[in-house]
Amino acid sequence: MEKQIILDGKHVAKEVKDSLKHRVEALKEQDITPCLATILVGNDPSSETYVKMKGNACGRLGIRSMQIHLPEETTTDQLLDQIIALNEDESVHGILLQHPVPRHIDERLAFDTISIEKDVDGVTTEGFGQTAFHFGRFPSCTPAAIMEIINFYNLEVEGKHAVVIGRSPILGKPVSMMLLNRNATVTVCHSKTENLPQIVQQADVIVAAVGMPKFVKGDWVKEGAVILDAGYNKGNIGDVDYDSCVTKASAITPVPGGVGPVTISMLLKHTVLSAEMKS
Amino acid sequence: MEKQIILDGKHVAKEVKDSLKHRVEALKEQDITPCLATILVGNDPSSETYVKMKGNACGRLGIRSMQIHLPEETTTDQLLDQIIALNEDESVHGILLQHPVPRHIDERLAFDTISIEKDVDGVTTEGFGQTAFHFGRFPSCTPAAIMEIINFYNLEVEGKHAVVIGRSPILGKPVSMMLLNRNATVTVCHSKTENLPQIVQQADVIVAAVGMPKFVKGDWVKEGAVILDAGYNKGNIGDVDYDSCVTKASAITPVPGGVGPVTISMLLKHTVLSAEMKS
Repeated sequence: MEKQIILDGKHVAKEVKDSLKHRVEALKEQDITPCLATILVGNDPSSETYVKMKGNACGRLGIRSMQIHLPEETTTDQLLDQIIALNEDESVHGILLQHPVPRHIDERLAFDTISIEKDVDGVTTEGFGQTAFHFGRFPSCTPAAIMEIINFYNLEVEGKHAVVIGRSPILGKPVSMMLLNRNATVTVCHSKTENLPQIVQQADVIVAAVGMPKFVKGDWVKEGAVILDAGYNKGNIGDVDYDSCVTKASAITPVPGGVGPVTISMLLKHTVLSAEMKS
Repeated sequence: MEKQIILDGKHVAKEVKDSLKHRVEALKEQDITPCLATILVGNDPSSETYVKMKGNACGRLGIRSMQIHLPEETTTDQLLDQIIALNEDESVHGILLQHPVPRHIDERLAFDTISIEKDVDGVTTEGFGQTAFHFGRFPSCTPAAIMEIINFYNLEVEGKHAVVIGRSPILGKPVSMMLLNRNATVTVCHSKTENLPQIVQQADVIVAAVGMPKFVKGDWVKEGAVILDAGYNKGNIGDVDYDSCVTKASAITPVPGGVGPVTISMLLKHTVLSAEMKS
């Protein structure tokens, strides 16, 4: 086998953030400070951590972070009012509603209330459609991160068979469409898929986005496949059984340090781009 | 092999239209006449024929058809003005912009100017997103027709491997998402796909949406596969080489008389549904 590449997400994220620094400075020279508003509803500890991480990442880059924390008992209408206020606030360039919201809230309606111009997290239905039709500005951040890693390492995609495991609205579906737009042949698998291992065995590119720890096993993997692990399960464990897969793959993302850090850098990139478009 | 089914699109379309008759009558009792506005730009003879066929199909069902024919030299702005006027016209329940428009027009912008409530042909970016996220009211009509045929004949889809050949915004992409939402494992192939015959050979369900006459050959087809031919090439020729495929398939749509007639019935169904939602 040719030399194997461990796809270093921290390095990719650093490159992205370095290139953003100059753009943030250029905006500040025009008296514009990019601003990301995050909304957290309720008290889920991991969500609190994620929101804090995103806020810190903004801060390090000179992006203003406006953190809104609403109580668990917030109604859908109250949340929509908050989103509408942020849509109308000209100092805000991006809005992120931390998923998941409490069960009594209509999350899809809340997502779709975010103005498409400020949907830097890529959660709206229309934003998904734009991504699928290949003219979206702000694809969902994890799919965008996967494509960024593919681009950074010049991994071959065109004509290749990509197998995506998972079909969520912010991960499996958009990454499938993005790979398709890059001329991959794309198979989307999920919990109802029959003969999953045999299908994965055909993949030149595997995207694991299933949300189950160590789900993808080494003996499902074709020698030389590229593996992108978008999983992030409790205890920093990916969807890929790294130890058994690393010996087969030609390139693989570790967890942590793979897709995750690049995802946050995509959020920052989209926020800066949104601010530039208003400048 | 078990008994083979020739999937009779004319029969499916008749059933759909029969069920719509009562709904149109019920609307008329409330003094509502469902109305489909069609816009044709330029003088492409096949487009003229399609628009006329759609108008006639409306007429036979008691749906009013408002046919707007704009000259070849219409600008994008002029077309958008026309669409906006129809969006605002309360007597109009559905708007269909006949594809393709002349090259100098921004077709995507024109499609996306159609109000989502009146997008009965399923061409808007947001409508596609809604379909992909499984809450769309008006999926594109050809994908909707394919699903209607699958439902009518109770063809098994869940867990099965569906291979879609083609990735257009109104056919390959939406039908892939609809099959995925019906729990099929879906592979999307296209002009850049390597080893296409080998991939098609794995399919339990084949959707041919490539726009090339007799493209899918019998020796690509697994014994017992279901074949849905969305092709409609010059001379009434499908994308499937019917004679070589019919001996392999457990069920197959002919061309003509397969997906085509059901597609028009889906347009009528969406127009009636849109009128009901305003009643």
